[in-house]
Amino acid sequence: MTGIPLNESKDPRAQAAIARIEQIKSQLNLSSSPMSRQAPKDMAEERAAAEFNIEELAKFWAGGEKRYNLVQKANEIIRNDPELVVQSPRNFLEFTRDEMREFTMGQIFRVIQIMKATDDKELGYEVGHATNVYSESFSMRFFVHDSLFRNVVNMLGNQEQQDRYNDDISNFRIFGCFAMTELGHSSALRDIETTATYDFATDEFIIDSPTITSTKWWIGMAGQTATHTVVIAQTVIDGKKVGLNWFVVQLRSKYTGELEPCVQIGDIGQKVGHAGVDNGWIQFRQKRIPRSDMLAKWVSLDRQGNYVPAPNPAVMYATLIPERLSLVTVTTQMISQALTIATRYGVVRRQGSKDQQIMDYQSHYVKIIPGIAFMYMVQSTSSALNEQFEVLTGGGAMDPIVYLNHMGDMHAMSASLKGLAGWYATDILETCRRSCGGHAYSSYNGIGHIIGDWGVMTTGGGDNVVLLQQCARYLLYRLEQKLEFDEYPDLKFKSSTLYIKDAKRYLENKTWPCNDATDCLKDFALVQEAMNTILVKRLYSIQQALKNGSTVNDMLLESVRVAELHCAAFIYSVCAEKFGKPIGAPGIEPSVLAIMKKLTALWGVHVLHTYGDQGFKEGYFTPEQINSIEKTYLETCKSLRKQVIGLTDAFGFPDFVLKAPIAKYDGDIYQTYLETLLAAPGSTGVAPYHAKYIKPLTEQENPNLVKK
Amino acid sequence: MTGIPLNESKDPRAQAAIARIEQIKSQLNLSSSPMSRQAPKDMAEERAAAEFNIEELAKFWAGGEKRYNLVQKANEIIRNDPELVVQSPRNFLEFTRDEMREFTMGQIFRVIQIMKATDDKELGYEVGHATNVYSESFSMRFFVHDSLFRNVVNMLGNQEQQDRYNDDISNFRIFGCFAMTELGHSSALRDIETTATYDFATDEFIIDSPTITSTKWWIGMAGQTATHTVVIAQTVIDGKKVGLNWFVVQLRSKYTGELEPCVQIGDIGQKVGHAGVDNGWIQFRQKRIPRSDMLAKWVSLDRQGNYVPAPNPAVMYATLIPERLSLVTVTTQMISQALTIATRYGVVRRQGSKDQQIMDYQSHYVKIIPGIAFMYMVQSTSSALNEQFEVLTGGGAMDPIVYLNHMGDMHAMSASLKGLAGWYATDILETCRRSCGGHAYSSYNGIGHIIGDWGVMTTGGGDNVVLLQQCARYLLYRLEQKLEFDEYPDLKFKSSTLYIKDAKRYLENKTWPCNDATDCLKDFALVQEAMNTILVKRLYSIQQALKNGSTVNDMLLESVRVAELHCAAFIYSVCAEKFGKPIGAPGIEPSVLAIMKKLTALWGVHVLHTYGDQGFKEGYFTPEQINSIEKTYLETCKSLRKQVIGLTDAFGFPDFVLKAPIAKYDGDIYQTYLETLLAAPGSTGVAPYHAKYIKPLTEQENPNLVKK
Repeated sequence: MTGIPLNESKDPRAQAAIARIEQIKSQLNLSSSPMSRQAPKDMAEERAAAEFNIEELAKFWAGGEKRYNLVQKANEIIRNDPELVVQSPRNFLEFTRDEMREFTMGQIFRVIQIMKATDDKELGYEVGHATNVYSESFSMRFFVHDSLFRNVVNMLGNQEQQDRYNDDISNFRIFGCFAMTELGHSSALRDIETTATYDFATDEFIIDSPTITSTKWWIGMAGQTATHTVVIAQTVIDGKKVGLNWFVVQLRSKYTGELEPCVQIGDIGQKVGHAGVDNGWIQFRQKRIPRSDMLAKWVSLDRQGNYVPAPNPAVMYATLIPERLSLVTVTTQMISQALTIATRYGVVRRQGSKDQQIMDYQSHYVKIIPGIAFMYMVQSTSSALNEQFEVLTGGGAMDPIVYLNHMGDMHAMSASLKGLAGWYATDILETCRRSCGGHAYSSYNGIGHIIGDWGVMTTGGGDNVVLLQQCARYLLYRLEQKLEFDEYPDLKFKSSTLYIKDAKRYLENKTWPCNDATDCLKDFALVQEAMNTILVKRLYSIQQALKNGSTVNDMLLESVRVAELHCAAFIYSVCAEKFGKPIGAPGIEPSVLAIMKKLTALWGVHVLHTYGDQGFKEGYFTPEQINSIEKTYLETCKSLRKQVIGLTDAFGFPDFVLKAPIAKYDGDIYQTYLETLLAAPGSTGVAPYHAKYIKPLTEQENPNLVKK
Repeated sequence: MTGIPLNESKDPRAQAAIARIEQIKSQLNLSSSPMSRQAPKDMAEERAAAEFNIEELAKFWAGGEKRYNLVQKANEIIRNDPELVVQSPRNFLEFTRDEMREFTMGQIFRVIQIMKATDDKELGYEVGHATNVYSESFSMRFFVHDSLFRNVVNMLGNQEQQDRYNDDISNFRIFGCFAMTELGHSSALRDIETTATYDFATDEFIIDSPTITSTKWWIGMAGQTATHTVVIAQTVIDGKKVGLNWFVVQLRSKYTGELEPCVQIGDIGQKVGHAGVDNGWIQFRQKRIPRSDMLAKWVSLDRQGNYVPAPNPAVMYATLIPERLSLVTVTTQMISQALTIATRYGVVRRQGSKDQQIMDYQSHYVKIIPGIAFMYMVQSTSSALNEQFEVLTGGGAMDPIVYLNHMGDMHAMSASLKGLAGWYATDILETCRRSCGGHAYSSYNGIGHIIGDWGVMTTGGGDNVVLLQQCARYLLYRLEQKLEFDEYPDLKFKSSTLYIKDAKRYLENKTWPCNDATDCLKDFALVQEAMNTILVKRLYSIQQALKNGSTVNDMLLESVRVAELHCAAFIYSVCAEKFGKPIGAPGIEPSVLAIMKKLTALWGVHVLHTYGDQGFKEGYFTPEQINSIEKTYLETCKSLRKQVIGLTDAFGFPDFVLKAPIAKYDGDIYQTYLETLLAAPGSTGVAPYHAKYIKPLTEQENPNLVKK
């Protein structure tokens, strides 16, 4: 597979482009140089150096052999489908916003066609999933309907409402969106301004946008596509605000696409990324909907106007948990692509006084390898959290008692993981960009596009500061309660805060009992002892400061940092348990388990290194230990240096998905890169504006010089 | 001034757009809300809270009252010039790449017209400068000719060559570019592949691109505009490579814009930012140029083939010093805009349980205020470095002995400042983005565009890792030499490494003599003692590790971090000297000096906090001191909280320059923001692809439901 399937296309436009490129190429010097000749050899050697079975690791990453094979098939379907492929005959990077919006909706249409046409439902689903990975705009747009909208209907609607909408949702007879954020409010949901006023006379709700700042804003799929939305609004009954509720509102005619009466919508226009997503704004002008469209799993309102609120107002935000877990999945999908690009380029590029592979520079591998390890750690952790979420929701059944008892922990963990992973992902992307030097500034090498799409992720879906602060508040509450109400072992729900039970013991710890941090690589308990001790000491310090007059705001940054560490430690604990078992244990191929053990060990020292300041602030780490941790960290990264290609190959991205000539699987990068540029429209010839702006200046004679 | 001068335009397209927007607006609810009503009040109160004279600070920032007035005039000229203004009648954010390339060249054409037409040469120059600030694509493209190309001719060309080209350069009869980077090599200049082979028979050089990786790459202005280039190449005489030299080569006809024979050029296509810059690639196919176009200030080649190399090969890179200093200036121009946007939004946006201004959150102001302070610190430092560079080059005279004696320090400081400022700027931009929540993801709020343009800066103009490593190498060399060759006090050149003279004393220091870090706010010497001690201890530790068998690569990250600290400490020392004088001292208005003292103090604790780990690692900082530094840092930021609007107002950006409705000077942001969206083409109406992709799905009847 190549980065550009242009030359495989039968489209006449592609053929014409190829002819033009061949003509230019004939005038160029495309001779190889020592570096360009060496590149494929380097790539092959790096691949051979993997100390694990790459294909087995790829299956593990994919979630098993069956899924691995499905993904391969799905990718082949995409690659050969002109309605799905984004680089041939035209490159989507050359699309206008209008074209990108249309093209992305075309992808959705085509994926729905494929899903409906295929008998192999699993494969059909996988084509959708693989297109998510392939096209972030598709992913976001599809997700709005298929997940955000659907989840609200199913997690907050009663059975009748689910029955009423689910078949239309699944068959795409309606397209739904998710109207939560307003121009004036987002993180502070309690302050949103949209109102839903019950009109007893007609048994209807009147949905209204009372001010400019109440305009629903950023709503994906609202700009051009959605026929329906769920909307969160202040519910007003008998002139009193009774709380937030979700309502289903039709936005557009299913037949003409025209706006419904009393609905005003516009497209949000140009964004940093996601050009294919029609984010929009919505104003409701006294829009009337039947009472039956107030989602009523947790609340009820009868014809007499008797309103029974939710047992806990937090259930109205319950869909934010799966949303955040989904965003973590998106994170691994996007960031692992950027890491693959930077890694492949890093092993074929040679530079410097000894003409070494740039991946050999400490500044390179120490930044990239922990990022790669993080992908594996996060994936393991988020699958554990997804399983726990399934336990809580019972596949949609959602026993209120079970759910409410544990949603605090679930919320804290989904929130902090979204926060930690999001922030670290931003760092990793910047690392990847810098690792490719100027070539990441070319849109044709993938990373720039990923960074553009990524830009929304640290504030969208919950601002990371707010999310981590919420987690910190939960941890402080747990410390206060000393885990007073116990776990339900029969539910298989395991709190992330179990270590707080031993808070007293941790607080009594003086300094870390470790003289040589290389011990951490084998002894996961030693690492956990350090993490838990630091966490409890930091939480206690914050708690004491709050009791002694510091405001919550004065402790905000410290709290956020502790929440990050809690999440990082949770990731470590999940992976230490998962991969701590002996080589040969069932369910995981030995070489895969061996490398996962190493990545877990690396993650442990990465966390101790990154949050070392938290340890020395508390007097728990000595300067010698800090130095030993740093040394061990650098050495562990170095020991994994030769595993980078195997580890990123296992992410399983074909070249056409990566869309980055500098990251070709075979390492033969330079000619493809140049050809990609040649294919860009307007890449050669006299500038169209030459006569207008250049010639009038340059054709003037210089009066001071004698003409040669 | 408003963010959109649309309604002031007399262009019929603007008038039509206004009519359409008014029609939509009439259907919307634009009523104010408590938050939107409060916003302008908040802005006014914040402005009134400045404890210094904002206009005086603005004059100080602009470089004096005269320049301040010139900038105001220049901005008015831009704002009223339809060829320069980027938002009316069409918004440049809606331009295709082709349109943006043409528009930017149109700006260049227009600025040249204005510069030639005006009798006030200083104002003409200022229009160019103000357009740099206003349009980053213009800035980069103009810079390539006016600075990069011109500097090479003047710093490396002999008098005859300067005379031959300067008048054409100044009058834009030629447009020059700067062909250094190749597809295969950039940071490692010694390995570049382009050759310049002397042909004795014809007295010519043959410039050639021998391989695909020798293709000149990323060359700004080469894609469509440049008539000439300077090109660096391996010089081959009598079959031997004698070193790198710079050559002037004509690329295109001045009359037709057609490529010269034996020159192949293409445009680099789509990039992450700088859509208006025609970066290109160049291949030379045995292109012949006269011997007289080898730039020969430092080298010579006579007709008999006798070649005299440069006294120091490093002079061939001398132009990189002013390039890097220019990039630092660009940094302050770009980042101060982003900070202004985030700050203004931060004081008018209210959110959270107490509905407070988001700027009041610790997570907000502790990130933003040090960034603002950094702008003032860097500007003071870079103007000091620019003065020193003038000392070295003597306004172009460049005494070789003076120059070569000091260029090491000058190189280290320009390199490390470009590196430190670049990396911190990336962090600040991310802070600004996050500080605006989702609204920074809208292209219409400025920050996204700045981030896109910024993307090239941490690797372009010298990879920051490499630059900082070079600085570290210089510091280690200085430690080894103990400043053996002394300074030339008569030259007014002050080495950044003077403190290394006292290395022995610093190494003997045990712990920092400070019990309360608030002492740092008044006692700048106490801070410098800490910085210098940590620097010397760290340098010594690295030196010892290298002597004991660690490789340079094993110490790379530690070296880079020390170089960062050296640069941060240098900034502090420059500002401590500049602003340490008593209030009332001549040359600086008292309230300006007072706030600059505070910003210097903040920068000091910021550095101690950021690099606290370096002090702790060396056993110099105790845990108590680390806590005290952190506390002081947070409190100092808090004490400056109410100064943020004054400090950013003084950057002096009119609304039309910021191009961000959420950052309007008057704080009345929401309606302008919504109107900006309404002005976007295609913002309302049925999706053009409705019949193709949406209707076929949504119009299907649901067989399971009885139609209502």
